[in-house]
Amino acid sequence: MTTTTRSETRPVQDASTSLRLPDIETPAALVDEARMTRNIARMQERMQALGVRLRPHVKTPKCIEVARRQRAAGASGITVSTLKEAEEFFAAGFADVLYAVCIAPQKLDRALALRRRGCALTILVDDAAAARAVDAKGAADGHVFDVMIEIDTDGHRSGVKPDAAALVEIARALQGRGAALKGVLTHAGSSYDLDTPAALARLAEQERAGCVRAAERLRGAGLPCVEVSVGSTPTALSAQSLAGVTEVRAGVYVFFDLVMANVGVCTPHEAALSVLTTVIGHQPDKGWAIVDAGWMAMSRDRGTQRQKVDYGYGAVCDADGNILDGFVLSAANQEHGILARADGAIDPAIAERFPIGTRLRILPNHACATGAQFPCYHAVAPDGTLQIWRRFHGW
Amino acid sequence: MTTTTRSETRPVQDASTSLRLPDIETPAALVDEARMTRNIARMQERMQALGVRLRPHVKTPKCIEVARRQRAAGASGITVSTLKEAEEFFAAGFADVLYAVCIAPQKLDRALALRRRGCALTILVDDAAAARAVDAKGAADGHVFDVMIEIDTDGHRSGVKPDAAALVEIARALQGRGAALKGVLTHAGSSYDLDTPAALARLAEQERAGCVRAAERLRGAGLPCVEVSVGSTPTALSAQSLAGVTEVRAGVYVFFDLVMANVGVCTPHEAALSVLTTVIGHQPDKGWAIVDAGWMAMSRDRGTQRQKVDYGYGAVCDADGNILDGFVLSAANQEHGILARADGAIDPAIAERFPIGTRLRILPNHACATGAQFPCYHAVAPDGTLQIWRRFHGW
Repeated sequence: MTTTTRSETRPVQDASTSLRLPDIETPAALVDEARMTRNIARMQERMQALGVRLRPHVKTPKCIEVARRQRAAGASGITVSTLKEAEEFFAAGFADVLYAVCIAPQKLDRALALRRRGCALTILVDDAAAARAVDAKGAADGHVFDVMIEIDTDGHRSGVKPDAAALVEIARALQGRGAALKGVLTHAGSSYDLDTPAALARLAEQERAGCVRAAERLRGAGLPCVEVSVGSTPTALSAQSLAGVTEVRAGVYVFFDLVMANVGVCTPHEAALSVLTTVIGHQPDKGWAIVDAGWMAMSRDRGTQRQKVDYGYGAVCDADGNILDGFVLSAANQEHGILARADGAIDPAIAERFPIGTRLRILPNHACATGAQFPCYHAVAPDGTLQIWRRFHGW
Repeated sequence: MTTTTRSETRPVQDASTSLRLPDIETPAALVDEARMTRNIARMQERMQALGVRLRPHVKTPKCIEVARRQRAAGASGITVSTLKEAEEFFAAGFADVLYAVCIAPQKLDRALALRRRGCALTILVDDAAAARAVDAKGAADGHVFDVMIEIDTDGHRSGVKPDAAALVEIARALQGRGAALKGVLTHAGSSYDLDTPAALARLAEQERAGCVRAAERLRGAGLPCVEVSVGSTPTALSAQSLAGVTEVRAGVYVFFDLVMANVGVCTPHEAALSVLTTVIGHQPDKGWAIVDAGWMAMSRDRGTQRQKVDYGYGAVCDADGNILDGFVLSAANQEHGILARADGAIDPAIAERFPIGTRLRILPNHACATGAQFPCYHAVAPDGTLQIWRRFHGW
């Protein structure tokens, strides 16, 4: 089931030797285990204090080893963004899986196969015709799908409005022989555009209240609605009350990143994911050092472009992860990153500061996008030893 | 050596049955074989007419099947952007490999291992200290590396200027026991910022003249310089003369994309790579259809953002690949694409035009970035049958 490619096991190590940073080639995706452990504990403790279950979104790390640590800290089930994630995590022993993207009818066979193998997979719809298609498929195959309805509480993407007539119509379509309504779900993704605690707390309350309102409408119409699922990392860390909510979904908190630092829910010093890179050249008259982490390693995500602090393609740290203030990846080609001063000034000593062969870590804008560029993570333990953790790719 | 993951073989097909578009799940990366064949022939014929060899850059497709077709059409050797590409292509029978990124000293062991296995790998430097490190490594290991010097002909990234004193210093450092100077190389990557034939032809001439000038300086100093390697897709397709050049490198021409269409070296109708996607929902009051190709499928590349035509995250086609003028992916989340009118107007009939379950193809901004999001391509033959072509991931 799990395959290993050559790149995931480079360099080949004897089990008796410990892999350390100087042993690995660049670019590589590093996970600072101590930071990740603190990020997991922080979110878990907050959810416990607010009286709700935490269902981590594994689309950020797509890594069994990370999800095992979230589960060990108290997480309850997982959220996925693709059926491949559902299959991979189910094979690794995660049976309670919520697929939080409205399902295309063509994917119902694959979802059904997973459920018949014993996966407690919940699927999502936000449309009456789609709900009827799920019910019809279940009825035709003698199966009852567990289904949630997506609620739109901030206008940023999918879902029906809490007060839309369609909400009850969709729910009624899920009362047939092939589908069972499990609850309502919302995601306040517009929280990524905010950057003050007050605005985040307001949006968290809007997310909570809208989803609870949808659940109450369904219950008022005599329809079952056990689960009320909300979440995004910024709102999860900003909510003052989660009354009426049963579970929270959040993903990027496990690593954090520069976008989240600009939103204000972490600092760059809490970012657990970085890209290890090597200096391969300079253009001293321009104040550039050139590194082997281009956009293929960092991803093309420029999420900080319109935020308080624009980090270009990432913030520069030394090889131990200490931030070198004032330096960013200002531009990127496929396998070349251009390291320069963030303020645009030319550092005349760039070649002496960062000689060829110097190793650095780059903090990414968006951990979900950067992680996806790598077949594996190198997890760095507090004692400096590394473990290779596979991650998924594709659909 | 070659591993196959489950996603690459979904759905499992009996060898006797033909895979067709309705059989595969979305999102999927489609390659239109007829278009690709024309793109390959066009570039190959142009290079032959200009009297130079073509060394395709395989960083765009990272796919053995594609490179085999380029070789069959007359290409001579390959260009790579990573040592993993070099290893994978060498294992598939491509022995003449140019690694066109200045090498980090820590990668010399891996390069040496590849050369000792019989790969004619050429490496690149643009710095005297790096050149001395290569020579010292070769001398210590009783090996002579083939090395080229990167020349900067347009100021966009790496390389030494054709008239820099450092050029001769680097070349002299490659006359020792561990390194042999093979030639000079340049890449006019700033061609991506141009969009008129006249400007492209001027830059192509600047690229040619600068690289030839560097070669002549070396020869004038009594140093060997057999190879003069230039190239980028836009300059390769715009050069009026390549006098003094021995080979051209180009990558994205094999697929083309919307960035190249804006540059003016192809039309969107020549783009061979697209992403097959399925409509999963709507927000009719906003004129949105929501599809299952988000940025994880399209990549975060927004290369058309500052060009003549901004296609958002991609141009929308029907399932057969016919462009639906006026519709783009206007925004993207990880697994959600938002399809809307390009002019910002609200299409009140969006849900009727694109019902849930509708399949579409999205042309990407940048084929190199979009291809990298997928473990395989689905190559669509003129008769509509599909073949699965593996592609590489990682370093």
